[in-house]
Amino acid sequence: MLAQSARKGYFHKNLSSICHILETSKPGDVIRVKGWVKSLRDQKENVFVDVSDGSTDRKLQILVPKKSKPGGLATGASIVASGRVTLSPKGQIELSARDISVCGECVVSDGYPFAPRKQYTPEYVRQYLHLRPRTAKFGALLRVRNAATLAVYDHFNREGFINVHTPILTSNDCEGAGEVFKVLPESRSVLRAMLKEGQSDDEVYFDRKSFLTVSGQLHLEAAAHGLSRVYTFGPTFRAENSRSRLHLSEFYMLEAEVAFVDELRAVMECVEKLVKSVTQAVLDKSMEDVERCREKKESSASFSWLDKTFPVMTYREAVGILNDHRDKFREDFSSSKGLGKEHELFLVQHCGGVPTFVIDWPQEMKPFYARANGDGTVAALDLLGPNVGEVAGGSLRENDHVRLGEKLPKNNSHLEWYLELRKFGSVPTGGFGLGFERYLQLILGTSNIKDVIPFPRWPHNCTL
Amino acid sequence: MLAQSARKGYFHKNLSSICHILETSKPGDVIRVKGWVKSLRDQKENVFVDVSDGSTDRKLQILVPKKSKPGGLATGASIVASGRVTLSPKGQIELSARDISVCGECVVSDGYPFAPRKQYTPEYVRQYLHLRPRTAKFGALLRVRNAATLAVYDHFNREGFINVHTPILTSNDCEGAGEVFKVLPESRSVLRAMLKEGQSDDEVYFDRKSFLTVSGQLHLEAAAHGLSRVYTFGPTFRAENSRSRLHLSEFYMLEAEVAFVDELRAVMECVEKLVKSVTQAVLDKSMEDVERCREKKESSASFSWLDKTFPVMTYREAVGILNDHRDKFREDFSSSKGLGKEHELFLVQHCGGVPTFVIDWPQEMKPFYARANGDGTVAALDLLGPNVGEVAGGSLRENDHVRLGEKLPKNNSHLEWYLELRKFGSVPTGGFGLGFERYLQLILGTSNIKDVIPFPRWPHNCTL
Repeated sequence: MLAQSARKGYFHKNLSSICHILETSKPGDVIRVKGWVKSLRDQKENVFVDVSDGSTDRKLQILVPKKSKPGGLATGASIVASGRVTLSPKGQIELSARDISVCGECVVSDGYPFAPRKQYTPEYVRQYLHLRPRTAKFGALLRVRNAATLAVYDHFNREGFINVHTPILTSNDCEGAGEVFKVLPESRSVLRAMLKEGQSDDEVYFDRKSFLTVSGQLHLEAAAHGLSRVYTFGPTFRAENSRSRLHLSEFYMLEAEVAFVDELRAVMECVEKLVKSVTQAVLDKSMEDVERCREKKESSASFSWLDKTFPVMTYREAVGILNDHRDKFREDFSSSKGLGKEHELFLVQHCGGVPTFVIDWPQEMKPFYARANGDGTVAALDLLGPNVGEVAGGSLRENDHVRLGEKLPKNNSHLEWYLELRKFGSVPTGGFGLGFERYLQLILGTSNIKDVIPFPRWPHNCTL
Repeated sequence: MLAQSARKGYFHKNLSSICHILETSKPGDVIRVKGWVKSLRDQKENVFVDVSDGSTDRKLQILVPKKSKPGGLATGASIVASGRVTLSPKGQIELSARDISVCGECVVSDGYPFAPRKQYTPEYVRQYLHLRPRTAKFGALLRVRNAATLAVYDHFNREGFINVHTPILTSNDCEGAGEVFKVLPESRSVLRAMLKEGQSDDEVYFDRKSFLTVSGQLHLEAAAHGLSRVYTFGPTFRAENSRSRLHLSEFYMLEAEVAFVDELRAVMECVEKLVKSVTQAVLDKSMEDVERCREKKESSASFSWLDKTFPVMTYREAVGILNDHRDKFREDFSSSKGLGKEHELFLVQHCGGVPTFVIDWPQEMKPFYARANGDGTVAALDLLGPNVGEVAGGSLRENDHVRLGEKLPKNNSHLEWYLELRKFGSVPTGGFGLGFERYLQLILGTSNIKDVIPFPRWPHNCTL
């Protein structure tokens, strides 16, 4: 067996990320750096090489004496360098390389799509999803997404919520949230081996048709009837044929469910607190990365909504505002058709660019489980945000066993279990779902949702 | 619009969970409690009601004067109670209820599957997945799972890793990790609208066949070539027809990938540190819940491996040990067939019950991307644990463009992108995947993997 002592600490001895070096190194320190060349400038005696390892948006400048410049030292190449920390004339930490070697070359003429010192559009970069994490802007996006993800877990943990992994595979297809994907084994031999008489291929593996989840809410409700406060954060799916800048076939949703809640304002408070606390955490941790990602620089000041209470209006009030501004819309507004994207964005603008709740929706515009207010509306909310419109939706849930049974979609014996949550030890519950990519678009001003997720999937596109 | 001030703080005023009350309340405090009745005992003048809200394994005892006992106060019912905190004769915090009301009754004869004061087997409870979170033991499991989940994010964040959401939908089906599920839209009209000439139904939506991921590794490698240290934590899928106590069709995997790593011991150090740090965090936060979950009480002391270095043996050494103990196995051991479950468990037992690395596997037993050692073996590892056997697997990755190209599965043009990671700015990388449910089985001594995931999916079973 390996000598144990030889193994310990190996990994950590080699940890020193560029982020760590820039924050903690002092002139004279001997360091070792690994990363990718972002740019180089030849000067009289030295080559100045900017290197990134993805740990921060900042680069470490490495001075390489011309005479020891290795072959293949070019933008995109990976390098290992060691030497002493020095200060640049401007007082920046830099590395005077004693050794530098190229691990892997990167030759643009071999087909590398990013030439040195060129700017590319997001659409161009998106063609190369496997190389996109190497670009400065998308690297920053991935760090922002990471910071927001961690902030979500931190926030819910502080608030006493328990994370529950709701399933991706489900036999429900009836929540009215849109088109679904069905799932079956690829292998003919698995299908043959498992087939029971009278089954279609779609039913063989699970003894029933199975789908990719459109929402973890119903499962979360089961957990909330026992754990009181629960949330889930994971991928959800829509098989829509949509190519909008705001839709994906696979996207992340953050859903929370709270028991013993019988006023919609409690759900609103949950949503508002989450959005503000995650945003503040991201700004505190990753301001440089946020600035790098933001497409619309002029909107930098727009985090002013962090200090404001989110306005609340009823659907009826929203209709009134929109009717007063009919001439402003490309598509006619009709209160029975609901809000289009331009109407959502107008309402946010009308409220000073602050994320805005629209509540008390007509029953027919919301799912069956939303609790009736008794006047034809239900206790449901949408949160509308700048740039994206709807970013979250939620409601109180119908917790009366008999009333819920009457509202249940017909012919859906698979939802017996959902009714039973109300039959035994029923409690008033409420909850919401927030689209994580929409949220990132909101804080970053990103036009296209495909640019805030590492590997976007949309109609005709599932590369990698 | 709603008066804003009326909304603020509403939710938090009502927060006081039983966990919070038990930790912070003092006799004389006036409190309000919401939860489910776990048991009741009638005494002369009072009814003693044990109530849980899922925030902790502990219950709050509520004293209800017999004369104010509401109708329907029975096990499983949901209640709201308020009154003053008092101390029991044993010095425990309890609530002398001034008001108590039943929100939702729970009548066993209406079909509630859990009668008061009865113990049920995990198999029985598993038939009622929607009600399972209400049971004491499964509630504890969900809290342990939550604690482990948070500890995973904390650990990787501290170690400088960036979380990357790798996709569930993928066009790769060739990693050799097992049978896959394919995915297509359920709607005939979506299929008709999107159909291009010559396409099968399977190809219409994404212009190619698409599958549920068996691993996020290849995508993580793309991110590691830019961010250096990345991880993903989410569901993965196998369409196997397996009913073992260790397999699910949908399960969670934790995968990490590190750039600039060229020794397998670095990957081992990553795995060992992760397993120990997450386990320690779970024990620190949730010891009561862990004790409630553990099936084999006699194994309580077995966390002794936390203080030990995980042993390491080569596959060849493992073969030697197994050959020396041929008589102990139900199935004959053959070095060319690899380790069966009983062999894995034997090796762990042989190493004193401490999780054990087996490294340097024959090339043909590991995927194409594992880096060759030059002697017919590859730089790959399995981590074997008590109760479960294999809990993690990893390797150094082949980072030479030409050698990787030769090893790539034939007829897979969809992996061109994976090759390109090595063509441009290639770096040595290594990584691993850890089965999260297996890990939970390991620390909890749980026999069946279906009892450590909220909503298990396995052949013929996708209820809810």
